[in-house]
Amino acid sequence: MQPTSYRTHGCGTLRSSDVGTIVRVAGWVRRVRDLGKFVFVDVRDRSGILQLYAPADSPWYQPLCALGREWVIQAEGRLRQRESPNPNLPTGEVELEVTALRVLNTAATPPFLVEDETDGQEELRLRYRYLDLRRPIMQRRLQQRARLMDILRRYLTAQGFLEVETPMLIRSTPEGARDFVVPARLRPGTFYALPQSPQLLKQLLMVAGCDRYFQIVRCFRDEDYRGDRQAEFTQLDCELSFVTREEILEIFEGLVRHVYAELLGIEVGEIKRLTYAEAMQRYGSDKPDLRYDLAWEEVTAWAHRQAVPFWQNKRVFWLWVAGVKASRNLQARWKALAEAAGLSLAFIQRAEGTYTTTLSKYFAPETLGLSEDGLGLWLAGEKLPGPELGLLRSTLIHDLNLPPQRPWALAWILDFPLFELTPEGRLTAAHHPFVQPHPEDLDRLEQEPLSVRSLAYDLVINGYEIMSGSLRCHTPQLQLRVFRALGLSEAEAYQQFGFLLEALGYGAPPHGGCAFGLDRWLMLLTGGTSLRDVIPFPKTASGADLMLQAPAPLSPEQKAEILRWLTVENT
Amino acid sequence: MQPTSYRTHGCGTLRSSDVGTIVRVAGWVRRVRDLGKFVFVDVRDRSGILQLYAPADSPWYQPLCALGREWVIQAEGRLRQRESPNPNLPTGEVELEVTALRVLNTAATPPFLVEDETDGQEELRLRYRYLDLRRPIMQRRLQQRARLMDILRRYLTAQGFLEVETPMLIRSTPEGARDFVVPARLRPGTFYALPQSPQLLKQLLMVAGCDRYFQIVRCFRDEDYRGDRQAEFTQLDCELSFVTREEILEIFEGLVRHVYAELLGIEVGEIKRLTYAEAMQRYGSDKPDLRYDLAWEEVTAWAHRQAVPFWQNKRVFWLWVAGVKASRNLQARWKALAEAAGLSLAFIQRAEGTYTTTLSKYFAPETLGLSEDGLGLWLAGEKLPGPELGLLRSTLIHDLNLPPQRPWALAWILDFPLFELTPEGRLTAAHHPFVQPHPEDLDRLEQEPLSVRSLAYDLVINGYEIMSGSLRCHTPQLQLRVFRALGLSEAEAYQQFGFLLEALGYGAPPHGGCAFGLDRWLMLLTGGTSLRDVIPFPKTASGADLMLQAPAPLSPEQKAEILRWLTVENT
Repeated sequence: MQPTSYRTHGCGTLRSSDVGTIVRVAGWVRRVRDLGKFVFVDVRDRSGILQLYAPADSPWYQPLCALGREWVIQAEGRLRQRESPNPNLPTGEVELEVTALRVLNTAATPPFLVEDETDGQEELRLRYRYLDLRRPIMQRRLQQRARLMDILRRYLTAQGFLEVETPMLIRSTPEGARDFVVPARLRPGTFYALPQSPQLLKQLLMVAGCDRYFQIVRCFRDEDYRGDRQAEFTQLDCELSFVTREEILEIFEGLVRHVYAELLGIEVGEIKRLTYAEAMQRYGSDKPDLRYDLAWEEVTAWAHRQAVPFWQNKRVFWLWVAGVKASRNLQARWKALAEAAGLSLAFIQRAEGTYTTTLSKYFAPETLGLSEDGLGLWLAGEKLPGPELGLLRSTLIHDLNLPPQRPWALAWILDFPLFELTPEGRLTAAHHPFVQPHPEDLDRLEQEPLSVRSLAYDLVINGYEIMSGSLRCHTPQLQLRVFRALGLSEAEAYQQFGFLLEALGYGAPPHGGCAFGLDRWLMLLTGGTSLRDVIPFPKTASGADLMLQAPAPLSPEQKAEILRWLTVENT
Repeated sequence: MQPTSYRTHGCGTLRSSDVGTIVRVAGWVRRVRDLGKFVFVDVRDRSGILQLYAPADSPWYQPLCALGREWVIQAEGRLRQRESPNPNLPTGEVELEVTALRVLNTAATPPFLVEDETDGQEELRLRYRYLDLRRPIMQRRLQQRARLMDILRRYLTAQGFLEVETPMLIRSTPEGARDFVVPARLRPGTFYALPQSPQLLKQLLMVAGCDRYFQIVRCFRDEDYRGDRQAEFTQLDCELSFVTREEILEIFEGLVRHVYAELLGIEVGEIKRLTYAEAMQRYGSDKPDLRYDLAWEEVTAWAHRQAVPFWQNKRVFWLWVAGVKASRNLQARWKALAEAAGLSLAFIQRAEGTYTTTLSKYFAPETLGLSEDGLGLWLAGEKLPGPELGLLRSTLIHDLNLPPQRPWALAWILDFPLFELTPEGRLTAAHHPFVQPHPEDLDRLEQEPLSVRSLAYDLVINGYEIMSGSLRCHTPQLQLRVFRALGLSEAEAYQQFGFLLEALGYGAPPHGGCAFGLDRWLMLLTGGTSLRDVIPFPKTASGADLMLQAPAPLSPEQKAEILRWLTVENT
């Protein structure tokens, strides 16, 4: 065989209709089964798996038997019907009777099984990511990732969005998480920063008249990667001019529906809209998992009419979980959870029509009018509503192993607070300092800033914040008012955000936008359990690339050079 | 006007057929012409320009007159036929008679004219890039950039390529230019590097069975930015498995033809193929500008038969430039250029049939058999062929202002040398150390490495290297032979490229690929004169972003933290 062309077909593309054709394929040896009278070899490429065959009297019988797992081979022959078809394989009705074989590369024995069901622990698989990615499930995830990006780009392009690349070497701005910094060799003592998002650049693109911008873009956060976070992540970044909040929600609702339809063939049902206040009141979370209908109901007025002493002067929330029975053990755990947060938790259990409750001395359970078996909870406290409602709700869902009412639940959360307090009691931007205050609350910006809502919105899917966005301040006057509320003097504001304020002064259009966390969305869309399942070359929780062995110490020369940079004084 | 929707139409989309419609538009005030009896205001958005109109008795006459340049406005009214159409404008037959007007934002006077023909110097325009990008020519370039990316992605996706994202925070490898490094806060004393290209990662994707990969990806080089270079640039990065060089050339020839057809409506003619040796022999360059047919011809054998003393023991090259006459001044400049390189340059000028040459005492000009007027040059030297042939050729084209024979000239340069010598005389990889040696030359790899050709190829367009690629070493044995030829011991090779050698040992398929420099190609495609014309937010030659004012000094806290990182000792 001469390599004028390594193959005529992909392994996984051959069917009964190709029987009789002379076929050449190339790929990896998945397994060799020598049955004495003949040998079967499964060969795998990106398109799938094909069975090679040779009888014992073939000159290719011995060479085929001698192949090792994951060797790279090229095989030629006539395609024939299998005697015993394999219905689990798209190519299961055919096999290739080998009349030429060439070993293109041998392979050491992989440190784990290159199959969907692998015996490799994650650390080992990350170390040999190029073998891990050979597993069909990982190949499918890579393909779904590429497919999602393609769907997003086509949809947005058709909607008049322009993909614009923004720089990666930018300026550090005191906003949000910590920046990765990059020494600038040509300008000793100075540094670039890697973007946490192209937020300001996309706003400048609106000032530039780009109208509708998008970008699928890498962003960076030098955080402690507790939980499932990555130092670098990919977002779909969008910004639009001359739009209302309603128009933005409609456009991206369309995008999201389109993605589910194209990628999964799923018709997304109603996309609920909740204000932040409603979400906190009913679910105790600004990213509630609405696959579960479970919701809190405030019963404070009713509770104050009861003789329950620890309900007086408290706000009381009621949750009903139909059809379940919770053990005393579970009840005790949940109670401890509530009490650790300074709240009281009481229960009523109805089982086969009979009630059990610690509150029976205060009122008769029958007066509640419960019409079915199930578990009821009252959570009471001064600080409610708060995140404890959400924590308890998700703990119940987990501990009782409740079934979701639907596989997908999408919801908009609207009217977030503009500001929040840091643990030290300082006012800070709840999203970022460029968010536009809600026009109805504008007159309270200086006097009661914590009561001011914003024009921010989040899209929550199955309990994850998948997209976050807002209308922005588009006049320098309003932007300065927000900076001032955040405690920045005009001089400080100009020092830190001068180019933005200046740009807003040169005719900025009304604008707003959003960013989708694509890694997390993909994790949901592909049924992965970690961001590492959908990022081709991810880092560990401590920021290491186990395959490349990065980060790594610098050479003494590079280190000395950086020390020289740092010690230059800047004017 | 309530902002339920800021606009019903884009300014540039309105035509005669829309006359009579109630229209709402939003955009920037381009200019206000108050003619006393009525006022005209040009308003501009991304889609184009629309003329607003109000007669002096309209309540909107005064507000329209009061608008300033680049203010952001919203206007409503009925579209009407213009009395004097403007044939230069797509909307030139219509105008909007204003019945409602709202100022969305005012604007300071721009520091330069926001028109294609601007009075702003480049430094000022980079400082106010968001105003520079408002100029229609820059908007068009942004759009062409997005369009090119879209064309590339669709074409490659249709050809079975999978877009895969590779990490930006990787490991510094001792290859090519200098890396930008990024301190890794979570692992004191260690650094990531920003990729100069995803070369090794895309090779690992081939080992992973991805088959056909592409990515439009940002790359970084911490070089001195002499000439037209950028610290960060965008490349189209591709890699394929189980392919021959011929197949790769065909695929990307198809891609390039498609881009020219789709983006410019141009049918690219023949794409020439030249070996490196031929290119050096005829054009003295591995990226010859073949818009000009001008080519050197070696006449050494003939020259040695002449009595010209300074031609003996030299190689002599002849160039004929038909139809031109060069002044003595020019001839003297070119001669000096040649002599500075240790070469001799002689001329013959034929004008109206009469010859002038400094060589007339050695042979009769008539024996040359020249059939037309023009200029002939002989360049002679021991080191020829070499880059001096190319330098002289391009100097002639420039100095004589020669017209190109065609607007576009595309050519493949093949069979590059595998190695070259550094100025210090050390053997180094001509492209990079992963390029596959030419199979025909493999037996000379150890003994005569400089004579070994590679399976590398470049695509040259109008004298620029737009794409560069190669087949790669796909067995660890061959890769180690190349490393050894480069002076790396096996231990050093494993220390620096261990993960690659290991990966090749786990069943790497034959593979190869390429990378296109998209910024430079876009510059050619859009008729720009600098990379800064086509990069949305470019840096200056010294690596500065004049708008963001990056790079910048770090805060004392950040600086102290980096010093702490650096002084941690690594084991």
